[in-house]
Amino acid sequence: MNEIRNVRQLNKDGIFDIIRHSPEGVSRAEIAEMLNVSRATVSGIVESLIADQLVLELGAGVSRGGRRPIVLQVNPDAGRVVGIDIGATHVLAVLANLRGGVLAVIESSLDIAHGPHVCLPIVCEAVDALLQRGQTPMDSVLAFGIGVPGPVIAAHGIVSSPPIMPGWDGFPIRKNFETQWKIPTFVDNDADFGALGEATFGAGRGEPNLAYIKIGTGIGCGLLLDGRIYRGVVGTAGEIGHVTVSQDGPPCKCGNYGCLEVMAGGRAIAERAQMAVKAGQRTSLAALNHGHELTAKDVAAAAKAGDEVSQQLLNDAGRHIGSALASLINLLNPGLIIIGGRVTEAGAFILDPIAEVVQKRSLRASYQASRIALSELGQHTTAMGAVALALDQAYARVRRGNIVRRSQPLQSPAL
Amino acid sequence: MNEIRNVRQLNKDGIFDIIRHSPEGVSRAEIAEMLNVSRATVSGIVESLIADQLVLELGAGVSRGGRRPIVLQVNPDAGRVVGIDIGATHVLAVLANLRGGVLAVIESSLDIAHGPHVCLPIVCEAVDALLQRGQTPMDSVLAFGIGVPGPVIAAHGIVSSPPIMPGWDGFPIRKNFETQWKIPTFVDNDADFGALGEATFGAGRGEPNLAYIKIGTGIGCGLLLDGRIYRGVVGTAGEIGHVTVSQDGPPCKCGNYGCLEVMAGGRAIAERAQMAVKAGQRTSLAALNHGHELTAKDVAAAAKAGDEVSQQLLNDAGRHIGSALASLINLLNPGLIIIGGRVTEAGAFILDPIAEVVQKRSLRASYQASRIALSELGQHTTAMGAVALALDQAYARVRRGNIVRRSQPLQSPAL
Repeated sequence: MNEIRNVRQLNKDGIFDIIRHSPEGVSRAEIAEMLNVSRATVSGIVESLIADQLVLELGAGVSRGGRRPIVLQVNPDAGRVVGIDIGATHVLAVLANLRGGVLAVIESSLDIAHGPHVCLPIVCEAVDALLQRGQTPMDSVLAFGIGVPGPVIAAHGIVSSPPIMPGWDGFPIRKNFETQWKIPTFVDNDADFGALGEATFGAGRGEPNLAYIKIGTGIGCGLLLDGRIYRGVVGTAGEIGHVTVSQDGPPCKCGNYGCLEVMAGGRAIAERAQMAVKAGQRTSLAALNHGHELTAKDVAAAAKAGDEVSQQLLNDAGRHIGSALASLINLLNPGLIIIGGRVTEAGAFILDPIAEVVQKRSLRASYQASRIALSELGQHTTAMGAVALALDQAYARVRRGNIVRRSQPLQSPAL
Repeated sequence: MNEIRNVRQLNKDGIFDIIRHSPEGVSRAEIAEMLNVSRATVSGIVESLIADQLVLELGAGVSRGGRRPIVLQVNPDAGRVVGIDIGATHVLAVLANLRGGVLAVIESSLDIAHGPHVCLPIVCEAVDALLQRGQTPMDSVLAFGIGVPGPVIAAHGIVSSPPIMPGWDGFPIRKNFETQWKIPTFVDNDADFGALGEATFGAGRGEPNLAYIKIGTGIGCGLLLDGRIYRGVVGTAGEIGHVTVSQDGPPCKCGNYGCLEVMAGGRAIAERAQMAVKAGQRTSLAALNHGHELTAKDVAAAAKAGDEVSQQLLNDAGRHIGSALASLINLLNPGLIIIGGRVTEAGAFILDPIAEVVQKRSLRASYQASRIALSELGQHTTAMGAVALALDQAYARVRRGNIVRRSQPLQSPAL
């Protein structure tokens, strides 16, 4: 249904959106043409945006003959946003300006299984340190985005039955931080933010239909469909880690058997390596195993050094991941699949079998329409997705004029 | 981005949308409240809609005390739409009024493999007969919707590399019909229309996230995500029939092995029955097999009569379907899965194992959020989805005033 709104506000929203989505800058004449309104209307509104310090004039436009036009950009220093990635064992926070430029990053350790009462103070400390590092007072942060490793009911800012977050079920994460910070805060699933981060700042720019799959200890997936994060009815969409890839495989902690995660996640690779050593297979992992729990990283390193057992373990994992991705391609026909997470550091030993099985097991027309790419943002993917969402919310506040004007303009610190 | 539009047109669109989405009727006061505009504004626009014969006044509103309010409804006879389902072996066409009421239905045989030059004249003949039956001149049809059994590039109205439509690849279906009929025509995939049909008129009313799976000769699936048909980047989303359910299964015509369709489609069930008879298994199907190619229908009938081999065949098929649906539930977390197609006539013999495996192999939170329901529209599902899309297009034309006013009002014939 169409909302009835004030025409001037509509024009202002439209103009601000165009400026926001033109990172290279856009001229008043181009805006007037795109919106099919008069130059005078555009100029009047632009003047008010400039007076509010939300928009800057730059002389850098590309001229089509004649004098160089003046272009408009969002003022990066009209405010700040913070994106936070709470993982199983870490918190990573990013401070960004209003054009998504990263000003500071901080990372700390935590154990998500200790519950919100232990973890949230650690997150708050990290944020304090981040703002200090970025020379940014709390009241210039316009919005926070927070990714967590479990299914999220985004509208309420809580997690719902999260498998690896004991003590967090139904805890009011959003409300807790908003009480602490007095700043609008938005919580979403880490893989959903991963998809949004890559789509906004990374390998997925310009692709409205993509899946971001993160192969770490577990295996998660975020979906961007028709340009929007797709969460499903209770926030559990994208649980590719629990797609069955082996009908008679080992039990998974979810209660099913042969889930992708127990066949191919980082923990599964490490456990299989341990079993191979115990079974007496000829592998360089055996020497490493004395007094040390093997990890997927050990397996990747051994594979690179020529250990055939390790190479086979990664190949098996890759084939299972390829099989699940082929199902995803058949069901969703995305234009792009972005693969991230630490296990991708194993390189071709895991990526080649993924590519081979995807080609073999997906419908040709869908396969031909799908690129596979590696994550460009690496360990920052989720936090940058949180930045992207926080920016959307910050712009909404800016447009509604719902921010306190600061007397002192912000300055971007040198990185 | 927000479009800048004339406020009166915005109000008119908003008012018409409200009336359209209020099948029980809505009063002027309710509209004014919903849009937060004055009674006078609503009344002025409503008078013009009534004068244009697009909206009717009815005295049937529920009064909250005081006199019975007059309610407004879309005039069902302001125009007609036609929904067409072109299947592998049939064409089914439905004539509907502007409130989606079915006025006439017609069905003919065709063989899609004969190509467009043979099939399209058969479709045109069926439409002529339909309009005659519905006492409807062609120029009161505001839009046609046409479902076809292959991947569709909806924007162009063509199919792209359709596996079971030889001779149709790239043929301009939409343009061909529009030249013939001089009426806006929209082509989409039959399973996509199935999802839209059930969502608009059938088992999926009110559920914005659903999958419609059709188990016929083959197995197809249409997706409605966040209230919109999801097609993917080249129109091949929903190809659940080609999800691998048996890593070492038999070859599929798509080039892969062990696809759901070759393990559990109607043709696969029939072929497995034939093999069981040839292998000398004790089954009542053996007696039927003399001079008759066994069908999935035969297997369903034998199962109901107590034949254990047939029961096992259907159980196996159901388990494979359940496994693929569990993957879909894990990836998409839909609120509803609607199962249709002729193979569902086998009843509990196939539906029970589907339900059992779905429960076993999907993540608990997603499983609990998903209902499974049978199609309510049966063989009319795809045609009614085509009606739903044609209605959207017809309303868009009506709102833009882009229709020829007829001097003689249409009459709904008695069914």
